[in-house]
Amino acid sequence: MAHVLVLNAGSSSLKFGLFVKGDEPQALATGLVDRIGGAAQLSLRNAAGERMLDLDLPPDQARDHHGALHAALAEIEARFPDAQVVAVGHRIVHGGRDFADPVELTLDVIAQLQALVPFAPLHQPHNLAGVQAAMAEFPHARQVACFDTAFHRSHPFVNDTFALPRAYYDKGVRRYGFHGLSYDYISGALRQMAPTLHAGRVVVAHLGNGASMCGMLAGRSLASTMGFSALDGLPMGTRSGQLDPGVLLYLLEQEGMDAPEISDLLYKRSGLLGLSGLSHDMRTLEASDDPHARQAIDYFTFRIRRELGGLAAALDGLDAVVFTGGIGENSARIRHAVCAGMGWIGIEIDEDANAQNATVISSDLSRVRVLVLATNEELVIARAAGNLAG
Amino acid sequence: MAHVLVLNAGSSSLKFGLFVKGDEPQALATGLVDRIGGAAQLSLRNAAGERMLDLDLPPDQARDHHGALHAALAEIEARFPDAQVVAVGHRIVHGGRDFADPVELTLDVIAQLQALVPFAPLHQPHNLAGVQAAMAEFPHARQVACFDTAFHRSHPFVNDTFALPRAYYDKGVRRYGFHGLSYDYISGALRQMAPTLHAGRVVVAHLGNGASMCGMLAGRSLASTMGFSALDGLPMGTRSGQLDPGVLLYLLEQEGMDAPEISDLLYKRSGLLGLSGLSHDMRTLEASDDPHARQAIDYFTFRIRRELGGLAAALDGLDAVVFTGGIGENSARIRHAVCAGMGWIGIEIDEDANAQNATVISSDLSRVRVLVLATNEELVIARAAGNLAG
Repeated sequence: MAHVLVLNAGSSSLKFGLFVKGDEPQALATGLVDRIGGAAQLSLRNAAGERMLDLDLPPDQARDHHGALHAALAEIEARFPDAQVVAVGHRIVHGGRDFADPVELTLDVIAQLQALVPFAPLHQPHNLAGVQAAMAEFPHARQVACFDTAFHRSHPFVNDTFALPRAYYDKGVRRYGFHGLSYDYISGALRQMAPTLHAGRVVVAHLGNGASMCGMLAGRSLASTMGFSALDGLPMGTRSGQLDPGVLLYLLEQEGMDAPEISDLLYKRSGLLGLSGLSHDMRTLEASDDPHARQAIDYFTFRIRRELGGLAAALDGLDAVVFTGGIGENSARIRHAVCAGMGWIGIEIDEDANAQNATVISSDLSRVRVLVLATNEELVIARAAGNLAG
Repeated sequence: MAHVLVLNAGSSSLKFGLFVKGDEPQALATGLVDRIGGAAQLSLRNAAGERMLDLDLPPDQARDHHGALHAALAEIEARFPDAQVVAVGHRIVHGGRDFADPVELTLDVIAQLQALVPFAPLHQPHNLAGVQAAMAEFPHARQVACFDTAFHRSHPFVNDTFALPRAYYDKGVRRYGFHGLSYDYISGALRQMAPTLHAGRVVVAHLGNGASMCGMLAGRSLASTMGFSALDGLPMGTRSGQLDPGVLLYLLEQEGMDAPEISDLLYKRSGLLGLSGLSHDMRTLEASDDPHARQAIDYFTFRIRRELGGLAAALDGLDAVVFTGGIGENSARIRHAVCAGMGWIGIEIDEDANAQNATVISSDLSRVRVLVLATNEELVIARAAGNLAG
């Protein structure tokens, strides 16, 4: 039986999944190696999502992505000895302006993706390291790239550019948007379950440790809160989100910080962690009585509301809102705080349905439908990789 | 008869006005010295707004703000020899977090404003130079500071902070907002002419060479598109407006630019000028057939619409929109482009009224009222300076 392996290599983590290839791929196992470069741990879940394994990796495997991938594959091969991996699908953060669809990773394509490293210096190199490692392990499998940016290449010019001299746009300083694999999954799920809503004006809020929102018209991305990098838009676990460019000039000129220090501040010490002083994790903040934790939550939900209004303007109105991602799928409190006070735009929530994480959480009489859908980026990758493998 | 002088010293310009002091100050003359430091010119208008004078300044007066102020005062004294200046009102860009009202410029206050220079290094020093020059010219007059930030000190925390570590908020990295004197004037005018709207949810779009928007609830500022500096929010003549912080990291790390180069790029070479490659001036762009000019206008109007949706979310809805500033008061095309497609939020425009720059340009059946009001920052300063002079 033919199988598809999915790899999602982040800066210090490796997510992976084994799927049975087919019209609709079936997950056999999904796993995660966390804290690569430190005290790395490997965990594995079966098709039902039940935990099969938790393992501390030995130093030689914990050290880097190659070691982590070896450890992950060893577990997969031990448990699924008959798996025949015909395709490996990779999540690649940046496809630049040219890649609007999944693509086979030929040497030429890899060179093009290497050239995009300056646009995503913290993520793209890890993605490509994962590709190299997978090519060595599976020399006969098709290697397929699936891009976080691809879903957003349909943005019109006003949502693709910044107001900089045009030479910067021409060289690729654009509003790429990210989390495209998640939005792609939600768009497809909505088309299945609610084709009329799918045809309309929908804002999807992907709220996890990373967070962004996407305005979709007829299932295609028209605008996103993320722009050139994964920093813009909503505040995140440790990332700042929207920031006055004058603040960076202040940090440079008045505080004497340099680019690596500012990058560390904005990517790793800001967001919910920076505002609360407590934690990047929404569950910790929700459980806390600290007023700074409450202010961090208030800021997070307020920025979502403000962006929701802005994306509705980009869509000329609003028919539905979809919450997804770890926070979006599980936090009734956050969804309530976002939707409260949005009656002016036609949102009315059913508090019982919301408390139960129901699929539809708007009231029967709400003009705007509000949904909660679990995203599945790995499935989107497995589909694309399987399709390209033929 | 007692008089009030108003001074507004920018980086290369000096606006001034002479008013008769009273319950409602009466303008006798308003003037402008432009291109200070270069081929400076002085122009003067009478109370009816008619041009009284256009003058090239000699090099010793064209050189700096002191020379420009001397030239301006010499013209005022020649034409109004009996004027008794009892108060000088100054527009000061930055009042920091403490100044929420106009204040007399004591030595102690001046020291406090000097300490704010790091927050507005391009503007605050020129404002304070104007104060020094006026103190030397009018040693017996009250010197009064009126702040562009003061009107926005009513922002709630979620509209005052960024998602940075809290130490930055504590040291003053906040969403100050600017154009406060203009919004103050509009708020007062609206209270006079339409108290019911004034009591409601109003977005004011101050669209000039600088541009921002303010969300007001019951006449008080709740949110603004400008944040820490005068760079954020809407694109402007030469300023970028909203920008992904990742773009600045890219400029630093990948393009090798330093802070002064980035500052020059974002303040002087971006915005409408950067996107069009033609001009910072909306009138020039509107008259052009160049597709890049049209794209620059499209971006400008689209960002206004997106911010309008975002500010409506901050206000929990929208009762009225007010256009003001040079572009807001005079460009029917821009107002049309902003309002078209905003039917979803309840805006319907009367095209004839809009074409005539009428005060009310919404249709009779529009749920949201749309107004065009001429702003008058100098009058707000003259009132405050006269009041503090007693």
